[in-house]
Amino acid sequence: MNWLDSIYSDGTRGFVSNMTPEIGEKVRISMRVMEDSQIQKVFVRRISNGAEQYIEMEKDKSFAGLQYYSAETVMNEPRLSYYFVIACKDVIYFYTQAGVTTYVPSEENNFVILCGKTRMNDCEDSSGHSAYNKYYVQPEWVKGAVYYQIFPTSFKDHSLYGVIDKIPYLKELGVTAVYLNPIFTAPSEHKYDCADYFHVDESLGGDEALEALSKALHDNGMRLILDISINHTGLEYSWAKNRKDFYVKEPDGSLKGWAGFKGLPVLDYRNDEVREIIYRGKDSVIRKWLRPPYNADGWRFDVADVWGRNDDVQLADELWQELCQAIREEKEDAMIIGEHWGDCTEYLKGDLWNAPMNYFGFGRIARQFAGLPDLFIMRNEALNSIPYKLTAQDVVLRTSEYYTKLPQVIADCNMNLFDSHDVSRAHNNPEIDDDKWRSMVMMQYLWTGIPCIYYGDELDIDGYTEHDSGFRFKMPWDEEDRRKKGQRFITYQKLNWLRSNEPAFAEGGRKVLFAEGRVLSVARFMDDNIYIGVISMEDEERTVQIPVGYVGACEPDNSELVDELGNKFEGRTCADGMYEITIPPRGSYLIKMHSSKDEAYKQGYNELSGSLE
Amino acid sequence: MNWLDSIYSDGTRGFVSNMTPEIGEKVRISMRVMEDSQIQKVFVRRISNGAEQYIEMEKDKSFAGLQYYSAETVMNEPRLSYYFVIACKDVIYFYTQAGVTTYVPSEENNFVILCGKTRMNDCEDSSGHSAYNKYYVQPEWVKGAVYYQIFPTSFKDHSLYGVIDKIPYLKELGVTAVYLNPIFTAPSEHKYDCADYFHVDESLGGDEALEALSKALHDNGMRLILDISINHTGLEYSWAKNRKDFYVKEPDGSLKGWAGFKGLPVLDYRNDEVREIIYRGKDSVIRKWLRPPYNADGWRFDVADVWGRNDDVQLADELWQELCQAIREEKEDAMIIGEHWGDCTEYLKGDLWNAPMNYFGFGRIARQFAGLPDLFIMRNEALNSIPYKLTAQDVVLRTSEYYTKLPQVIADCNMNLFDSHDVSRAHNNPEIDDDKWRSMVMMQYLWTGIPCIYYGDELDIDGYTEHDSGFRFKMPWDEEDRRKKGQRFITYQKLNWLRSNEPAFAEGGRKVLFAEGRVLSVARFMDDNIYIGVISMEDEERTVQIPVGYVGACEPDNSELVDELGNKFEGRTCADGMYEITIPPRGSYLIKMHSSKDEAYKQGYNELSGSLE
Repeated sequence: MNWLDSIYSDGTRGFVSNMTPEIGEKVRISMRVMEDSQIQKVFVRRISNGAEQYIEMEKDKSFAGLQYYSAETVMNEPRLSYYFVIACKDVIYFYTQAGVTTYVPSEENNFVILCGKTRMNDCEDSSGHSAYNKYYVQPEWVKGAVYYQIFPTSFKDHSLYGVIDKIPYLKELGVTAVYLNPIFTAPSEHKYDCADYFHVDESLGGDEALEALSKALHDNGMRLILDISINHTGLEYSWAKNRKDFYVKEPDGSLKGWAGFKGLPVLDYRNDEVREIIYRGKDSVIRKWLRPPYNADGWRFDVADVWGRNDDVQLADELWQELCQAIREEKEDAMIIGEHWGDCTEYLKGDLWNAPMNYFGFGRIARQFAGLPDLFIMRNEALNSIPYKLTAQDVVLRTSEYYTKLPQVIADCNMNLFDSHDVSRAHNNPEIDDDKWRSMVMMQYLWTGIPCIYYGDELDIDGYTEHDSGFRFKMPWDEEDRRKKGQRFITYQKLNWLRSNEPAFAEGGRKVLFAEGRVLSVARFMDDNIYIGVISMEDEERTVQIPVGYVGACEPDNSELVDELGNKFEGRTCADGMYEITIPPRGSYLIKMHSSKDEAYKQGYNELSGSLE
Repeated sequence: MNWLDSIYSDGTRGFVSNMTPEIGEKVRISMRVMEDSQIQKVFVRRISNGAEQYIEMEKDKSFAGLQYYSAETVMNEPRLSYYFVIACKDVIYFYTQAGVTTYVPSEENNFVILCGKTRMNDCEDSSGHSAYNKYYVQPEWVKGAVYYQIFPTSFKDHSLYGVIDKIPYLKELGVTAVYLNPIFTAPSEHKYDCADYFHVDESLGGDEALEALSKALHDNGMRLILDISINHTGLEYSWAKNRKDFYVKEPDGSLKGWAGFKGLPVLDYRNDEVREIIYRGKDSVIRKWLRPPYNADGWRFDVADVWGRNDDVQLADELWQELCQAIREEKEDAMIIGEHWGDCTEYLKGDLWNAPMNYFGFGRIARQFAGLPDLFIMRNEALNSIPYKLTAQDVVLRTSEYYTKLPQVIADCNMNLFDSHDVSRAHNNPEIDDDKWRSMVMMQYLWTGIPCIYYGDELDIDGYTEHDSGFRFKMPWDEEDRRKKGQRFITYQKLNWLRSNEPAFAEGGRKVLFAEGRVLSVARFMDDNIYIGVISMEDEERTVQIPVGYVGACEPDNSELVDELGNKFEGRTCADGMYEITIPPRGSYLIKMHSSKDEAYKQGYNELSGSLE
């Protein structure tokens, strides 16, 4: 172990006294490091009103060999941006979210705290565009949340009433929020070709079905995210005939289609009337569904990457500002999720989206690490044929490039998925056996954010990998009883239980402990509630030493050496904070470390395990 | 040598057919790599209207062992952002401005081309805030430019007429633009305590002196940058008595001072009248001095880091948008320079500033590498006492973190300085001997951007390091004749000649060739016009092998082994593109490599050398 590698802080409540403090509030910021380090002094180095400020940190509690340092500063502006400066005898270290350097780092990887609920002062932002001149409201249900994505026509009885029927099933699985693919009137199965944004498709039960579903979900403590493409409609929308001025035109006068699909004409947001109907107006589309009686808890925006971008007419920055402001006016804690497969950190500073569908920072990585082709690269034939494996180190670097740009509250909102209506289900690819699938799911719960289960993955749903329709098979309810007892359902159920009940997963920090070859170990933790995941994508057995001391752990909680998914493992405690573990080919373990002080946990978990036997 | 390390591209005309293409124009993009690499295919991977696009590159020319690949794409939007994807037999590499990865990189280090002069289409940007929905005009004089910074009251006769007198001297030195510290009516020497933005201080010669100076400079082919603090005025401004509503107030009703200095009251930009007077109005301060008869070529904005930032009132984003737009309306190719000592890449995307005073990406680095304390860290007593040395590798990483975020045209505008009116002159610090000073200057010309010479550095001006006044000594004109023949003046003169006349420096690319311990080697090049700088901050002699083959070089141009500053060196060509050189303690060399095809260069340079003997 190396004391420099033990340095840790983040924006969780383990290290920040208030994750969304109000303007004027004092915030206590902590970092920790192995005891007996060579540190002389530590400072929080922040930017305040554009200028640099150093706040000396004091020694605070120590815990399991880790010394905490803390300092207080005032949340004097809407965005508190900082890193740590660590003075040793003859060297100065700088610690940002991207790690430790011996040179003054750039500001992009700073820790960031967003100001909470206090209304800003009476300075009316004259333009409405000052990005950070706002407060941020974290949806309170993010903590411990798990999404379940439903493709409505494939789920149950082709209707929203079918979803209502299955709420007990969803509760048994342990998910807390439903993300519904589009439900507004549209001719296709997928309904991204909308014909009427203002009404739920009759085949799905119409508006009253949505009202009933929303009520049923909320009565059961669950949340509802709706899906919409405001980038384009279908050709059956009456506008396509009567209001051609609502659409972008090709040079020949025809309606321009999204990605060249003429059936999906792109709305023209240079037209103020379009903005009015979609989001600006009191009764606009976006606002209507957030309000009673529908009460959606948020929106997932389709093709968010391209919205408002059209050659010399680049309106995206302006449109997102306006749209998100309209949503916040209507429901300030609405969850705003953008469909984006690439680096979209520009939207994730706290003023626009809460989260993307996290393909870039999670899904594409998990798939590639498991041996599937990258979801973008595979579209290019010349590249797709190259046998290309992501190493554990690349997984870490790639993940870090993404997460280190995010405020913690935004990181916590990431919708972490690897399957969806748009990508072949991992388990339907020959490359992904049971072991690899379990590893991918484990990664999903180890990454910071909200895991999203695509309907049917828990039942090992059939499908094929070549075409959309293969990712949207009907839910195999007939086989439910048989399959429900299978490993998939139970794996998710156990992980969901951890995610909802264990602080480490619900709201904890995350630290990479080991990354060599294709073996990765990541810890999730909140104080003495500590888990480590160990994942190998190697084809041979590996024995590795994991520096669990970095997160204050020493040995597994379960002396029988059985992990959280019921798998027995071989491990041994070494000197100096290391834990040695032997991992079979493609093996993975999720291990609770240290002894939890929370007896309720053991009780609850044993009851759950009992009920599933 | 390693073919991966030879991969190179940038946004200069060596690799891009047009650095500011118009909308609709085809751009040819190139990259190069050592011949006999393992490459199967190369793609330009760009974002177009938010979506990913691959364009296969074709083999183009080869030169000095380097194979070029090129591809054409259309400048269909105001900002063309791309990286390269390099397909080998069993691995894919991704090459951004930050280097090569084996994983899909984030977009922040992409190569960026900004669209040039064509007016955008008739879509009136309704908010005026759409960051990239504009064209970018590079001041044509950037190519080969060198600034000379003048603190007016200390330069010559305490007046602008004194500057006019010394234009022949400036031309002999070889600078092409003057950056003048503030000249508007104000009681202090430094004049950041402005009493009237609308008139030049009478003690400096009044408005007509500025008119005369501007004319004289322009008649001599030189440019003029003015300096202003629009963040605060002095207390003698009439507004401080009559228009208290123009200023930010403390809770007790008194005027808030910049950084706590009550004598420098901060203007309140919530007041539209202030915006009107400063930049919005037709006859506003900022516009007046850009117009005839004053014709300033740009502005340097004082304390740009804190402007408009005041706790819960954070107006900076909005104000900079408005200010820069007003400036562009008045003079679209005006140079906009912000005083910023930290990471200010948020202002450097092409829609706001052209450049910062580049302390962060150059000045602080050069000073620290030479053994001076960092300009920020030294303010903190606890940190200042730590003997802290920057390694060459840290120099490279730190520089890279900055430059890799910039479009090339913006990088080319950086005002690269290590001395100014705000920092102790490097050569007045005991740590900096002649050798180290020469190394720092050499770095200044090796870094991408416009070097800025602080008046008097070329004459080894006296001063002390503890206080501002020690950095603002009177120019020692009496001793000019003696000192002019000294090494400092000649060093700058030679480097200025190279900068103005040699494509490698005037508009070339930049590649780090070597960085180990405290030895650094950087190449500047344009096609076969190639220079390498080799700088050692070690206290002992070093012999190092530099992979000059990466930039198509093989051996020094001068077979006598004398560098561009007249220093003889020991070097030898090794096999495989390496050049071995022995560097004395604190030594540095600037070596022209390869044989230039430009005979005019040799002739011009010899004449210059002759005239200085």
